[in-house]
Amino acid sequence: MRTVYWENGVVKLIDQRRLPAVLEIVSYTDYKKIAVAIKDMVVRGAPAIGATAGFGLALAAFASNSSSRKGLLSDLQAAAEELVSARPTAVNPGWVVNRIMVRVAQDESLGLSETRNLVLQEAQLIADEDVAINLEMAKYGSSLISDGDVIIHHCNTGSLATVDWGTALGAIRMAHEQGKKIHVLVDETRPRLQGSRLTAWELDQYGISYEIISDNMAGYFLRSGNATKVFFGADRVAANGDVANKIGTYMLSLAAKDNNIPVYPVVPTSTIDLSLRDGDQIPLEERDPREVLDISFQGERVAPIEAQARNIAFDITPHRLVTAIVTERGIIHPPFEENLAGVLRNE
Amino acid sequence: MRTVYWENGVVKLIDQRRLPAVLEIVSYTDYKKIAVAIKDMVVRGAPAIGATAGFGLALAAFASNSSSRKGLLSDLQAAAEELVSARPTAVNPGWVVNRIMVRVAQDESLGLSETRNLVLQEAQLIADEDVAINLEMAKYGSSLISDGDVIIHHCNTGSLATVDWGTALGAIRMAHEQGKKIHVLVDETRPRLQGSRLTAWELDQYGISYEIISDNMAGYFLRSGNATKVFFGADRVAANGDVANKIGTYMLSLAAKDNNIPVYPVVPTSTIDLSLRDGDQIPLEERDPREVLDISFQGERVAPIEAQARNIAFDITPHRLVTAIVTERGIIHPPFEENLAGVLRNE
Repeated sequence: MRTVYWENGVVKLIDQRRLPAVLEIVSYTDYKKIAVAIKDMVVRGAPAIGATAGFGLALAAFASNSSSRKGLLSDLQAAAEELVSARPTAVNPGWVVNRIMVRVAQDESLGLSETRNLVLQEAQLIADEDVAINLEMAKYGSSLISDGDVIIHHCNTGSLATVDWGTALGAIRMAHEQGKKIHVLVDETRPRLQGSRLTAWELDQYGISYEIISDNMAGYFLRSGNATKVFFGADRVAANGDVANKIGTYMLSLAAKDNNIPVYPVVPTSTIDLSLRDGDQIPLEERDPREVLDISFQGERVAPIEAQARNIAFDITPHRLVTAIVTERGIIHPPFEENLAGVLRNE
Repeated sequence: MRTVYWENGVVKLIDQRRLPAVLEIVSYTDYKKIAVAIKDMVVRGAPAIGATAGFGLALAAFASNSSSRKGLLSDLQAAAEELVSARPTAVNPGWVVNRIMVRVAQDESLGLSETRNLVLQEAQLIADEDVAINLEMAKYGSSLISDGDVIIHHCNTGSLATVDWGTALGAIRMAHEQGKKIHVLVDETRPRLQGSRLTAWELDQYGISYEIISDNMAGYFLRSGNATKVFFGADRVAANGDVANKIGTYMLSLAAKDNNIPVYPVVPTSTIDLSLRDGDQIPLEERDPREVLDISFQGERVAPIEAQARNIAFDITPHRLVTAIVTERGIIHPPFEENLAGVLRNE
């Protein structure tokens, strides 16, 4: 099953807020509600919200009652901006809607109906390509995984974070399917717990051995020689190889580096943003503090009623901590500034 | 109010599992139940479980129905072993019961009743000394805190972790009482959430400005220049200055070091264990995995029903990441091997 798909004029999403307790598919016919769904994390994961934004744009195309091509393009532009601004850190939604808008603008002879169909066709193509790209990444990523590896994995980067198959978790899944004996230490990934909720659920589906740890335990396993590799995805990679990913990735990578354990972000090339010189230029989303405060432990609310919290959703892992970046076009080694640009040039 | 105290033959403890929702005092008359209370974390924090073990030994002394001094000492020895083994990482319970046993053994002329009273008297003295020692540590520790500091604090090291006043949090509280404007970023401290439950509650009591963060956000604040100092306590310090403390301290210290932010453990000298060459010799407790799994997020259970977890309760922060160690006898700088031994020699 895909995490996001189009069916008879309706966008369908697995509601990831309900997993692992409930597997629920929700339907959307209004692109504005798609933007809210992205913001509220019904769907999350950079490639998945990219594909979802594409289908959201298709909904906007069919909903537009403009009678001119110019009017339709203007409606699409407004929808594109709303979909992209739902979450600022990942580059993928911007990359997707930009690709669709450029495609639509190319052929001025198209009528209204043809233009609408082209938006959907391109959104569908992007979703299909995502699966194909993920399989390529999994092929390269799994070549870095050996029999006996114990892999620390942060956040969720599996089928649920993409259209299907996943980035880092796709590589792990493929290594497992190749018959390699592996074990995954699943960072629970506070505050939204994508690790213990989503990654654990996926690993259960695939029959891969795992244990959940709190994020702050990774250092122990790395330092004591009980973890051999670190894998995660990314929401954006800057030109110099700095990686924006789920909060906690920086501290995890630092602990890996301190113990000479290799660190592998697995990312589609669409996640690489050469327009940004380094990670400090990547906008980092800050979310509602209630995501930190609204948990309970053994049935009792955790923080004092009046407590305040901060909720930074992403951080930057400097490229000096990254061993190599796995993409669908191969494994990119340092120096990243040169090699990332080189790979993107060969389009 | 003290976290642990003796009242008319009864040991009283604040039940820290109920805070911040409920402030409940529980009474103990059986040392075996004290050992269980330490294990179950009714009371936690190295100095607090040390003082509690002392009072537990007093309960054992009065409960012993041995008719000989030798029999009483044997009963005390059995109780001491049970109390110390309740939690293995902190050195304080061992230090406390050893001090009491040595004191009791010194004077062979004492009768049964006098011996029992001496156990209680020494336990009471240790508890009173703990408060005095904490005030000294707070004096030294607060001298390291400047107006405008934003301090990241891990776990709970306040009144609740000691008999009263605290170690690292005592220093922060004293700096606040000195009129310094400070702000504390409170690591929530997974899995038991001592930060968001206990430290936040204490800071509320003292009127100190704070915000809760998930542990994995500390790196963001350190890297972005939004945190100026890191403070925590310790459960044991080895001869070379390696620090055993609550899980996550290593990754926090590493992120501080990576950004040239000073790292200060605040520890009574009783926490320093010169018998251990380095941190790798300190036993690290692994607790019930349900402490990681049994949380709910916005009302829904987090992990899949069948999920497994690991729950390492402490980690080792290598001394190279520590700026200086604050004790009641002053601030100890590197080289720690030489200077820790020097401070302990001057007893």
